[in-house]
Amino acid sequence: MMPWVMAFEEGSAEDRARLGGKGAGLAEMSRIGLPVPPGFTITTEACLAFQDQKRLPDGLMDAVWTHLAQLEKKAGRRLGDAAAPLLVSVRSGAPISMPGMMDTVLNLGLNAETAQGLGQETGSRRFALDSYRRFIQMFGNVVMHMDHGLFERALEAVKGEAGVTEDQELSADALQQIIDRYLKLVLDRTGQPFPTDPRQQLEMAIEAVFDSWNNPRAQVYRRINKISDQLGTAVNVQAMAFGNLGDTSGTGVLFTRNPNTGQPGMYGEFLTNAQGEDVVAGLRTPRPIEELKAVLPATYQQLQEVCALLERHYRDMQDIEFTIERERLYLLQTRTGKRTARAAVKIAVDLVKDGVLSKEDAIARQDPAQVAQLLYRQIDPAAELHEMAKGLPASPGAAAGQVVFDADEAERRGQKGEAVILVRPETTPDDIHGIVAAQGVLTSRGGMTSHAAIVARGMGKPAVTGCETLRINLAEGTFTVGDVTVKAGDLITIDGGTGRVIQGEVETVAPTLFDEFETLLGWADGIRRLGVEANADTPEDAQRARDFGAEGVGLCRTEHMFMGQDRLPVVQEMILAETERERARALDRLLPMQEEDFFGILKAMDGQPVTIRLLDPPLHEFLPDEGDVAAELADSRAKGDLRSVERLTRVLGRARQLFEFNPMLGFRGVRLGIVYPEIYAMQVRAIFRAEARLVAAGFDPHVEIMIPLVGVAAELERMAALVADVHAEEERRSGEALPYQVGTMIEVPRAALTAGAIAETAQFFSFGTNDLTQTTFGYSRDDAESKFLPAYLADKILPENPFVVLDADGVGQLVRMGLEAGRKTRPDLRVGICGEHGGDPASIRFCHEVGLDYVSCSPYRVPIARLAAAQAVLATATRG
Amino acid sequence: MMPWVMAFEEGSAEDRARLGGKGAGLAEMSRIGLPVPPGFTITTEACLAFQDQKRLPDGLMDAVWTHLAQLEKKAGRRLGDAAAPLLVSVRSGAPISMPGMMDTVLNLGLNAETAQGLGQETGSRRFALDSYRRFIQMFGNVVMHMDHGLFERALEAVKGEAGVTEDQELSADALQQIIDRYLKLVLDRTGQPFPTDPRQQLEMAIEAVFDSWNNPRAQVYRRINKISDQLGTAVNVQAMAFGNLGDTSGTGVLFTRNPNTGQPGMYGEFLTNAQGEDVVAGLRTPRPIEELKAVLPATYQQLQEVCALLERHYRDMQDIEFTIERERLYLLQTRTGKRTARAAVKIAVDLVKDGVLSKEDAIARQDPAQVAQLLYRQIDPAAELHEMAKGLPASPGAAAGQVVFDADEAERRGQKGEAVILVRPETTPDDIHGIVAAQGVLTSRGGMTSHAAIVARGMGKPAVTGCETLRINLAEGTFTVGDVTVKAGDLITIDGGTGRVIQGEVETVAPTLFDEFETLLGWADGIRRLGVEANADTPEDAQRARDFGAEGVGLCRTEHMFMGQDRLPVVQEMILAETERERARALDRLLPMQEEDFFGILKAMDGQPVTIRLLDPPLHEFLPDEGDVAAELADSRAKGDLRSVERLTRVLGRARQLFEFNPMLGFRGVRLGIVYPEIYAMQVRAIFRAEARLVAAGFDPHVEIMIPLVGVAAELERMAALVADVHAEEERRSGEALPYQVGTMIEVPRAALTAGAIAETAQFFSFGTNDLTQTTFGYSRDDAESKFLPAYLADKILPENPFVVLDADGVGQLVRMGLEAGRKTRPDLRVGICGEHGGDPASIRFCHEVGLDYVSCSPYRVPIARLAAAQAVLATATRG
Repeated sequence: MMPWVMAFEEGSAEDRARLGGKGAGLAEMSRIGLPVPPGFTITTEACLAFQDQKRLPDGLMDAVWTHLAQLEKKAGRRLGDAAAPLLVSVRSGAPISMPGMMDTVLNLGLNAETAQGLGQETGSRRFALDSYRRFIQMFGNVVMHMDHGLFERALEAVKGEAGVTEDQELSADALQQIIDRYLKLVLDRTGQPFPTDPRQQLEMAIEAVFDSWNNPRAQVYRRINKISDQLGTAVNVQAMAFGNLGDTSGTGVLFTRNPNTGQPGMYGEFLTNAQGEDVVAGLRTPRPIEELKAVLPATYQQLQEVCALLERHYRDMQDIEFTIERERLYLLQTRTGKRTARAAVKIAVDLVKDGVLSKEDAIARQDPAQVAQLLYRQIDPAAELHEMAKGLPASPGAAAGQVVFDADEAERRGQKGEAVILVRPETTPDDIHGIVAAQGVLTSRGGMTSHAAIVARGMGKPAVTGCETLRINLAEGTFTVGDVTVKAGDLITIDGGTGRVIQGEVETVAPTLFDEFETLLGWADGIRRLGVEANADTPEDAQRARDFGAEGVGLCRTEHMFMGQDRLPVVQEMILAETERERARALDRLLPMQEEDFFGILKAMDGQPVTIRLLDPPLHEFLPDEGDVAAELADSRAKGDLRSVERLTRVLGRARQLFEFNPMLGFRGVRLGIVYPEIYAMQVRAIFRAEARLVAAGFDPHVEIMIPLVGVAAELERMAALVADVHAEEERRSGEALPYQVGTMIEVPRAALTAGAIAETAQFFSFGTNDLTQTTFGYSRDDAESKFLPAYLADKILPENPFVVLDADGVGQLVRMGLEAGRKTRPDLRVGICGEHGGDPASIRFCHEVGLDYVSCSPYRVPIARLAAAQAVLATATRG
Repeated sequence: MMPWVMAFEEGSAEDRARLGGKGAGLAEMSRIGLPVPPGFTITTEACLAFQDQKRLPDGLMDAVWTHLAQLEKKAGRRLGDAAAPLLVSVRSGAPISMPGMMDTVLNLGLNAETAQGLGQETGSRRFALDSYRRFIQMFGNVVMHMDHGLFERALEAVKGEAGVTEDQELSADALQQIIDRYLKLVLDRTGQPFPTDPRQQLEMAIEAVFDSWNNPRAQVYRRINKISDQLGTAVNVQAMAFGNLGDTSGTGVLFTRNPNTGQPGMYGEFLTNAQGEDVVAGLRTPRPIEELKAVLPATYQQLQEVCALLERHYRDMQDIEFTIERERLYLLQTRTGKRTARAAVKIAVDLVKDGVLSKEDAIARQDPAQVAQLLYRQIDPAAELHEMAKGLPASPGAAAGQVVFDADEAERRGQKGEAVILVRPETTPDDIHGIVAAQGVLTSRGGMTSHAAIVARGMGKPAVTGCETLRINLAEGTFTVGDVTVKAGDLITIDGGTGRVIQGEVETVAPTLFDEFETLLGWADGIRRLGVEANADTPEDAQRARDFGAEGVGLCRTEHMFMGQDRLPVVQEMILAETERERARALDRLLPMQEEDFFGILKAMDGQPVTIRLLDPPLHEFLPDEGDVAAELADSRAKGDLRSVERLTRVLGRARQLFEFNPMLGFRGVRLGIVYPEIYAMQVRAIFRAEARLVAAGFDPHVEIMIPLVGVAAELERMAALVADVHAEEERRSGEALPYQVGTMIEVPRAALTAGAIAETAQFFSFGTNDLTQTTFGYSRDDAESKFLPAYLADKILPENPFVVLDADGVGQLVRMGLEAGRKTRPDLRVGICGEHGGDPASIRFCHEVGLDYVSCSPYRVPIARLAAAQAVLATATRG
């Protein structure tokens, strides 16, 4: 059995689980010779034994007395010794920080005799009595469970009688009066006298701290923060250092660097003649740490040296508590300091430059989720705000603007430079122009892959979707949440990173790309094996992706091109065509538009691969809503507008014909290409024509044509033959050699299961893990995320949302199988992933481990992917 | 190289591919010593060489002359010899029968001289000239491509001049006149004289038969019947036997048994003094074969002996052509006779009883698709009918009745004993009572797994779904197809086995279960390894399944119980409940109803396992259609019916809340059980209460509780724990031991992929291959079958509809993986299949091969499954 009590100098930073964070820090600092008041730690194991037996375990107090004796020796004082009384602090300290959740007792060891001795020894009766008063108050509250207010009222009463307002102004006599009242209060309220035996005090305090592990607020905190109840807390017993021994004494907290910006140099505050609780209580305003230089220059310099030493030792920015007792510096705590995303990057890079950290460590320690914050507009963390509703965090970033319920109006006002938020029950292709012009999108229906979510993410525009508490009344131009009604034109702010909807306009802060970030990503590029590409549908997206470091476009969706306002009518014409000739005519009109689309993207990605996915969504997505058309039709009928009636009747008929029970599993992807090969032929022709122009102009386009939703090898064979036919025609027509590759998405289980046969034709695979997750689980993302997934995550039936973190056991198994079978057929098969998982760090690590060639993600996730891909290498290397 | 020409006696029945069916039959009959006119066969390989080179290949005619010389020797006659002229028939004969598609020439070898010689030899100038006349006519038409009508008109002209009406009445002189006219006609029309050299005739005829392989009607026939163009046809050259040599001669066709009923005894017809073409042409009415006994008793007896010999030799009923030349019997063809489903079974069983066939062979040779016809009402094959539309063959069987557009009316009239067909755009749970009362269902929307299809199949009721050419006008009570309008009350007939919709009432014939069928199935039971269970939701279904030989209920769906008219309101109450208490109240009311359901089924299946699947479909399926409610609400509002407005508003709100984009992938199955455990708890309680009552009454119920749609092992763990809790309560409550098993459907890919973990809890697996096919392919069956699957099947992108025949490469791989992983965890895991594939022979064979324990299918498919399971054993044994 490990010992239940360890002196500080017996432990180290490694012992965090047994000593708690605070104990491990004190041990480590003692070990490396920093000025730490002597003490010992009672381990978490003792706490667990206590929880188990509902009392201090046998032998524990014996060990405490043994260590106390050693402590007394080191301190040159003894507990209860009136001549040279030892006072100690008794502090909790769990392995995972739970700030303020558990209890602490300071100045333990005081009674009438030792207080008097302390007064004589320090030459300050007032200090001694103030310490005694504080001790009774804290012990009474924490150990004897008395209401804090009782002591406060007694204190206030004496202050009133003495005619003073500040604690500091109380005389020694007044303090003695307070002590007397406190002691009586304890006796009256608890029926027991305040313990005068310091050993009894210590035993009671230890018990109380152990007890506090299970106080209600600690339980709640652990539940919220997902901290196990089985960790327990350690108890640190440490000789008191007194910051309240006059103006050469003091106490403070500081970060070794600025936690907001990462700037080097101490960042913190202090109070002279004070104990730690005074800083926390906020009764006096602490002073910036720089001012300590003027007050106690030598101590300030020592503090600077200690900070440098701690950073070098821990190889990270530290968060420190210290006390100065008559110019003598004591460290009471050190821990890794929390910091902003920006500071995290800067500190890591600076530490590398200072030679403290390796590049690998600088990368490994970044939290990608935090780094992601650097890439979106954020709600100013300092802002006060009224959160009125919460939806799904569909597309990160924050945006504020006036509420608009109509896409046309959003476009009109957006083009005038006004900031608007488009609010809709859900969006359709008809709303695209409104989304383009708006600052952000808010919908009451639809999940993380609803139209609004996908389009907004593609544009890097904030979106909150599926906000089901929103009741939208389009007719009246209002939405209501509970009893709050928001009208068109009212200001709201949305936070697409958290799903918050906030009333009014809240300050937002812009994303920042800065030197240290670029430096860090450059190092990551040197380490990672996975390629990082981007999902981009426009030349602007492609350029942005390239700016963010993408090495190609791993997914260029062509359907968004079809949804442009100039295209949609022609696309609808194509869909409504009743003869092949009519359809051919509409396709002929689309051809030059598509050619320009591809020309722009291929040009922007000159020299890098661009994987163009042919049309994927079901055709009905391009038709207006059935209900809307029916209403419009009734209207036209009433007006006697025959031409309109005729057109709308056709639209309605076709919409009904294309209706699907489960569009996700319907007539889409390559199924369209098989039934309407002329659509794919048009797209392929446009690609090759764009390529031909670029080749002729001296560019170096890398064309990859991707067939979506293949599940049967024959589908891909047919489509590859069609591509080859068009290719031959266009090479002849242009007189240019037009290199290309043809491949497929692996996004239904059958494709993964028959990947060997598919790879006979496919030159590359791209795992479409969004759809693959839907079909492997049998979850419609739109429905799952609004219906049962929240319960599944809350109940831990699933460890993570599988649409966010790739499900290694199920979906991942298909990825492995598909990869292996594909590479067996075609060893040089290029294999990547282009679902949303391509931007998720845990999923990127999986992709690295199974041996994919690249990940492709939203341009805004590219930096995260570069970082995570490097972290994957480091984690695998460490583990291996 | 194999020889291009083979004498009959050189070949055998094995040589069908090279000799064609007819050639192989003639060879085999020759080989076993039956009276076959001598001849030889030119192989299909020669035909393919001809097709390739567009001319008779070198050396072919040399081989023909060699064989001709042998033939002349055997026949004692020579081609072109005026004294003893040899006449031959030249007949096509492909490896797969293509009746009437290719050409034949009879009486070849005649010219003026040989005709005269033949007349002298046979003593009948008339016979010789008639044969010559026939030859010119046939040769002119088949070989020289002259219009048949030209000869007919010349024949009629001479008949007119001679004043006779029948060919038989023509005198020899008249026939000579006809021959003269025919010869002139040939010269006039083709510019060439009719060939008089018999060798030239033979070469031309062989070429013409080869040519006929690619005539348009043969090509079309092959395309329709999926016969390869690469087979080619053989040509049989055979000495003519003359059935037209007077009244002791004749010709006929017969089956060795009755092909309709399977009754033993010859079944056929004959004509005296006729050639084969006379029987086919139908100018004279043939006489029943029995009458031959009186006409030519010895020949009749010889024929009977030959039939017996042939059946014994071929071990099957034969279809024979014969000719009698002056009392001498010649066989011209034998082949396996086509027969009805009923005859197929009876003949096989009779042949086993006769010792001709083994039981195994009797089973192996049944076509399960044909046998299936025995289990449903069929449209009378003899009926004339007007097919007005074609939908999906959603539930087999034929039904006729008056069109009814409303479920309530269907129920009202059905209960009065009227035959009605319920016609709806699609059906919902609200229509169940109408379906129960109707003879059949016809819908214009929905696929093979639409509500209508599933419910109808479950009830064994004919249904045609997704008949998209139907335009239904509910308001007017009509439906229209093209320009035909059918009103409510009009008679229609539907054929759920083919999807046909027929105007008017067509005769149907009832299914027949007869002794031989039971005998055959009994033999199958002795051979098969797979268990056969049934999908049954009611005691009646369960009893029917048992009558059909089911060994348990492999799938008892509980949702159909929820849809009963008395249940639905309570179910809706449960769904609309706003508090747990309200829900509990509704569930309390459902509990005794469910208990009765389970009591009935468990009792019917006493001693056999009943696998009860807990509630599976999304809750919105139990709510009325959103549009209907909205309309009703508007109505109630107008009437000022406040109570109704309130209720409907709640219904509408809940329906909208439960709305799903992809219900197939939505909030259903175990997901309901996780979120609303009280629903599953109620069902489980009802099961155990029913079990307790049965156990107390001395029955032996075998309860298996099946959790649907599990994809994550933790889902099953939770539900198994819930089952165990309720079980403990109910054992306590009843004081009975209540054995049970708990298991799961494997119906999403992830379940198969993580089957090892799931089997930690599951005691049995049932592969739900309907859903597994949907998710593995990413096909919504409802959408796929009406949108793109037809194109996929037509284009051969898929070899079969994967919803009908289990996809071994994809879905089957998951079945294998799931089975292996499950059995690795739990070696005694019971594993079956309960999708529709459980009743499909090819899929059953797959199930046998991978080692499943049982299949479960519709009660009406149970006999087919028993047969197919036995065939699987036989096929595997043969192969192995």
